[in-house]
Amino acid sequence: MINRQIVLASHPQGVPLPSDFACVEAAVPSPSTGQMLVRNLYFSLEAAIRGWLDGKANYFEPIPLGGAIRGPSVAQIIESKLDGFEVGDIIFGLHHWEDYSLSDANTVLLSKLSPKAGIPLSYYSGGLGGSGQTAYVGLHEIGKIAPSDTVVISAAAGATGSMACQIAKLCGCRVVGIVGSDEKARLITNTLGADAAVNYKAVDDLAQAVAAACPEGVDVYFDNVGGRTLDAVLTCMNAFGRVIGCGMISDYNDPDNPTPIYNLWKIVEKELTMRGFLLYSYMDKVPEAMEQLHAWVEQGEITVLENITEGLPNAGRAYSDMMKGATVGKNLVRVDTEHDAC
Amino acid sequence: MINRQIVLASHPQGVPLPSDFACVEAAVPSPSTGQMLVRNLYFSLEAAIRGWLDGKANYFEPIPLGGAIRGPSVAQIIESKLDGFEVGDIIFGLHHWEDYSLSDANTVLLSKLSPKAGIPLSYYSGGLGGSGQTAYVGLHEIGKIAPSDTVVISAAAGATGSMACQIAKLCGCRVVGIVGSDEKARLITNTLGADAAVNYKAVDDLAQAVAAACPEGVDVYFDNVGGRTLDAVLTCMNAFGRVIGCGMISDYNDPDNPTPIYNLWKIVEKELTMRGFLLYSYMDKVPEAMEQLHAWVEQGEITVLENITEGLPNAGRAYSDMMKGATVGKNLVRVDTEHDAC
Repeated sequence: MINRQIVLASHPQGVPLPSDFACVEAAVPSPSTGQMLVRNLYFSLEAAIRGWLDGKANYFEPIPLGGAIRGPSVAQIIESKLDGFEVGDIIFGLHHWEDYSLSDANTVLLSKLSPKAGIPLSYYSGGLGGSGQTAYVGLHEIGKIAPSDTVVISAAAGATGSMACQIAKLCGCRVVGIVGSDEKARLITNTLGADAAVNYKAVDDLAQAVAAACPEGVDVYFDNVGGRTLDAVLTCMNAFGRVIGCGMISDYNDPDNPTPIYNLWKIVEKELTMRGFLLYSYMDKVPEAMEQLHAWVEQGEITVLENITEGLPNAGRAYSDMMKGATVGKNLVRVDTEHDAC
Repeated sequence: MINRQIVLASHPQGVPLPSDFACVEAAVPSPSTGQMLVRNLYFSLEAAIRGWLDGKANYFEPIPLGGAIRGPSVAQIIESKLDGFEVGDIIFGLHHWEDYSLSDANTVLLSKLSPKAGIPLSYYSGGLGGSGQTAYVGLHEIGKIAPSDTVVISAAAGATGSMACQIAKLCGCRVVGIVGSDEKARLITNTLGADAAVNYKAVDDLAQAVAAACPEGVDVYFDNVGGRTLDAVLTCMNAFGRVIGCGMISDYNDPDNPTPIYNLWKIVEKELTMRGFLLYSYMDKVPEAMEQLHAWVEQGEITVLENITEGLPNAGRAYSDMMKGATVGKNLVRVDTEHDAC
């Protein structure tokens, strides 16, 4: 057996290029006591990974040149020396972009999945995985949404944003999504139930456009992008509003030159709370999130948007497309288990 | 009787000048039912007032040209048509810079004071007034300080900062103050008990200087200044750190050109909470704060730093000095009750 790995070939300059990644062939590792060997099935492509590609610590150690890309996956256990985890079980965890990974009790985000009949396994990498959980936990624990709130969501057609739109709507909020194309604007209003959409690329004054779409002001802002969008939405916040600091993708491709923010005075003036969060600090909230998300998906209340790329060797290209903003919904790579060479 | 008023003569450009203010003579008003006439004794000079001088709303209506400057005062009731408030009572409230003001149940920050024997009345405008209350409420309600925390405080020799230094220290925290002169640095370490001080004007790299003064990182940042100082301290915050958004004086003198902030990514990466607050939203916490502050002052545990300017007509000059950063401690104007003309 060969273990294909997607490794970091070069530190990206700005948006990652497919050539920043390379496929290499390695040996399949053997689990020691307390470990298990898993076969990766779906990789979840995450904006956060971009922060690990520059050779600097960014809430995780950087990925070294030649090192396998770190990323969460749905995987199946093929050998286990870890109590409570059996061969055949499906798990989720932060592994590497490779066919086979070692996993253990310390694996970040590790959980044993109980996939339900009729629900695609891929959903557990996205809508029912980190993206959906992040949306749910962020809105409730950080945003403290209430039914009458106006909730603005950026990157609203993205993996987390598309789930946040639907969850906030199901919780009775008025939902306004910010997106980067008219096509995405139609998608979030027609398919995801958003009350309004703002295409930030099509307006001269984003703050004005958000204000117009939110006649009663903004109570909660689910911020996936940071930068100019955050700066604009800050001017629209109601007193005691909450800003959910989920991500700042606008700066991920060029972290040495972050976009300046000018409107922080609003945090004092409007007594806002801006709180950052990373899902793995809220794992105790995940069971409740999963139960609710499962129910909504089974009832057809939530549409899980997916963009699945076939084949592990295409992961780098898929990642590049996502970081260009060219995709919609959750970006996944399905590992081609029948082709073992790069 | 003449009612001297200090009015806005011109919208300041940058730091207010004494000539932006003028003293005019008006009639003493008569209280209607539900109102009281008070004689102002001490005015508390507040950085927040700067935000009301530009003709734009800034969590209060702007002060119009020719309008009396709005500001909190300690005052004595000389005529009352308001139940529960008797002639002779000492009150605190947001009045105007004038000899006599009308006050009523809706007066912002209104409270009846119970001055204790041996405590100067001026303290109720500062250390035992809004500044001390803001420091206490900010540290506890927003900063959620715990004894082992490292707390960084900017404008640490100022009215609020000097109280925050001492309160945090009394609560068992390690306290590091950021100030603008070596003299202030000595003051906060020698007199206020701060463990370390950083003179931001004397260091090349403020982030590095703060990091050096906080070897275990920063858990709570009491931000009175915003701007470059906030940007620097953000890089030093520990995971789950709290930023108390109390003020952003660095931008008050030029609100149309706020200082850009570049390091907001830290809010996500470190899961920080940045929360703005205005004291008047936390009036229910004031009794507890007052009880504790009184006790500390009486026990000699807290030094109240005051810079008292004599005479209402000098209020504009005193305000200008404060906004230049030329003063230390609480800036007050003592109303010269024996001189009734401008």
